Amino acid sequence: MDAVLVTHLPNIQYLCGFTGSAGMLLVDSSSAVLFTDSRYTLQAREEVSGARVQICKHGLLRAAAEALRARKGRSRVGYSAGQVTVAQKQALEAGSGTGVRWTNDGGAVEKLRAVKDAAELSAIQEAADIISAVFRRALRGIGPGVTELAVAAEIEHDIKRRGGSGPSFETIVASGARSAWAHARPTSKPLRKNELVVLDHGAILRGYCSDMTRTVHLGKASRKVRSLYNAVLEAQEAGKQAIRPGVPAGDVDRAARNALKRAKLDRYFTHSTGHGLGLEVHEMPRLGKGDQTTLQQGMVLTVEPGVYLEGLGGIRIEDDVVVTEKGAVDLTTAPRDFLEL
Amino acid sequence: MDAVLVTHLPNIQYLCGFTGSAGMLLVDSSSAVLFTDSRYTLQAREEVSGARVQICKHGLLRAAAEALRARKGRSRVGYSAGQVTVAQKQALEAGSGTGVRWTNDGGAVEKLRAVKDAAELSAIQEAADIISAVFRRALRGIGPGVTELAVAAEIEHDIKRRGGSGPSFETIVASGARSAWAHARPTSKPLRKNELVVLDHGAILRGYCSDMTRTVHLGKASRKVRSLYNAVLEAQEAGKQAIRPGVPAGDVDRAARNALKRAKLDRYFTHSTGHGLGLEVHEMPRLGKGDQTTLQQGMVLTVEPGVYLEGLGGIRIEDDVVVTEKGAVDLTTAPRDFLEL
Repeated sequence: MDAVLVTHLPNIQYLCGFTGSAGMLLVDSSSAVLFTDSRYTLQAREEVSGARVQICKHGLLRAAAEALRARKGRSRVGYSAGQVTVAQKQALEAGSGTGVRWTNDGGAVEKLRAVKDAAELSAIQEAADIISAVFRRALRGIGPGVTELAVAAEIEHDIKRRGGSGPSFETIVASGARSAWAHARPTSKPLRKNELVVLDHGAILRGYCSDMTRTVHLGKASRKVRSLYNAVLEAQEAGKQAIRPGVPAGDVDRAARNALKRAKLDRYFTHSTGHGLGLEVHEMPRLGKGDQTTLQQGMVLTVEPGVYLEGLGGIRIEDDVVVTEKGAVDLTTAPRDFLEL
Repeated sequence: MDAVLVTHLPNIQYLCGFTGSAGMLLVDSSSAVLFTDSRYTLQAREEVSGARVQICKHGLLRAAAEALRARKGRSRVGYSAGQVTVAQKQALEAGSGTGVRWTNDGGAVEKLRAVKDAAELSAIQEAADIISAVFRRALRGIGPGVTELAVAAEIEHDIKRRGGSGPSFETIVASGARSAWAHARPTSKPLRKNELVVLDHGAILRGYCSDMTRTVHLGKASRKVRSLYNAVLEAQEAGKQAIRPGVPAGDVDRAARNALKRAKLDRYFTHSTGHGLGLEVHEMPRLGKGDQTTLQQGMVLTVEPGVYLEGLGGIRIEDDVVVTEKGAVDLTTAPRDFLEL
């Protein structure tokens, strides 16, 4: 490829530091131009390094296409088919003219981003420390009568109090039967005795995300609930043990799923085992069934098996780990013991 | 069109009530099917009305394409070229086979959503009331030494305390020279005396967003700052006065912009005058230069002119209004007077 037009904002932030909500970055072998609009003139000047900034009056896409049209000769330009919409592609083609052949870059920047450098790892470690501390404090406020929303509000407030720039996604606090909704939003439902409570939360620090889930029980749990919890914990441990450089991502999923299979619980595990974590809370690789992406040193992953039983509730345990030559190393420090509050 | 495949999540929520993060809705003249995955089995059962739910094991897109392939005869199927990525479109074409002709639906659902019914207006009014109250309370915590992040954290916490399900976007608190960044994120910078502070915040209630900006000054302001503030307030009033059913959206922008022109400040007004508001915090119509969308009764709009002077700072005043037969009616109740704290 002679040039790549980067349109996905986290990729742009990764490459040149710009954090605004409107940007396109055109990169070739000798230069880079960030196209943005006049709302971001001052911000781009402070944030961007390694790229020239062009403020666009009539749309970024038009400006980027015109810059390509002005190039001499024919060129092959990469774009991300997984990010660019059909309408954007049509406008790019029309604007850049017949000299440009557009080629899917196959997520080239996402692949770069999957392996973290030392500064990135340190930001994610700090983001993970924040959410571990936030969870410990949140436990004090959990009890019968408190609403899911109130617990979530405290968590998000505490993330900022501890220096995080915000939650890395909308905090999940799901109690009782609702804990069996794997992606429940918190509601005004009060927590009650003898309920499971799933807390799924993360912090952003210097742009980087953490992501952690803990499941606690209000009051003394039944033997059944305890044994479910232990099975999920064992599945998580099995997933972590499977992590090492050179292994396909799908093997981690299989290890966790097999552990639940031995406990005859695999049919209640309704999502994949984990995902990459960085500038985005979901990024490459995906720890899903049969995924062939090879794990590499410096990748940061979540490991988060769960079981969801209608009526009874859900249990999920999620940690962030970094892939090292010795295997998975935990970034999440909060205890994983079963807590009866 | 014989059917429409709806992929944009707020459109899906609007049409069938589903709020999960993975869904596709296939609608034809006689039926509707929501495709989602096993994480959302229980949630979909509770939330969805007017559509059959299909839980997909191998991807929603594949399931939707297969359903189309199974239809008899040739059909024209609508999709949103502004939302569907190039990769998704290719997969849909491959999966649905040659019997389907894919046609851009031109944002048909977004157009429906632009005009709000009574229940939607009442949710937005309540969301606007929440943020007006949150702002009034936030004023008490604003003073020299408090960081932008601390003010933002208090605002987002208070939104939830007042029953909102969360902020409708990342709260902006930008002070001093940083207030000239139209879309600044809050930082650990402390507020200082003699600075402007821009607060741009919104709440979500029952899925619907509010969006409000106020600019305050720490200490007594200079005559220059006061006159800038009054010019922005006049531009906002001029914008509101231009709103009535039948008028092109661009006329509202022109009215606000002309008011700033009379004060010789139009070159510091670096964005459009406003936007539609509903399930999304930015939706149709856009109150931008030359926009030809016709305003209709029941549309909800922001009116938010601003000026941004490098070094000195920025001033923006934003209210939410509903278009009625008599013109714009304010949904935002917080005072617009210039506040010197």
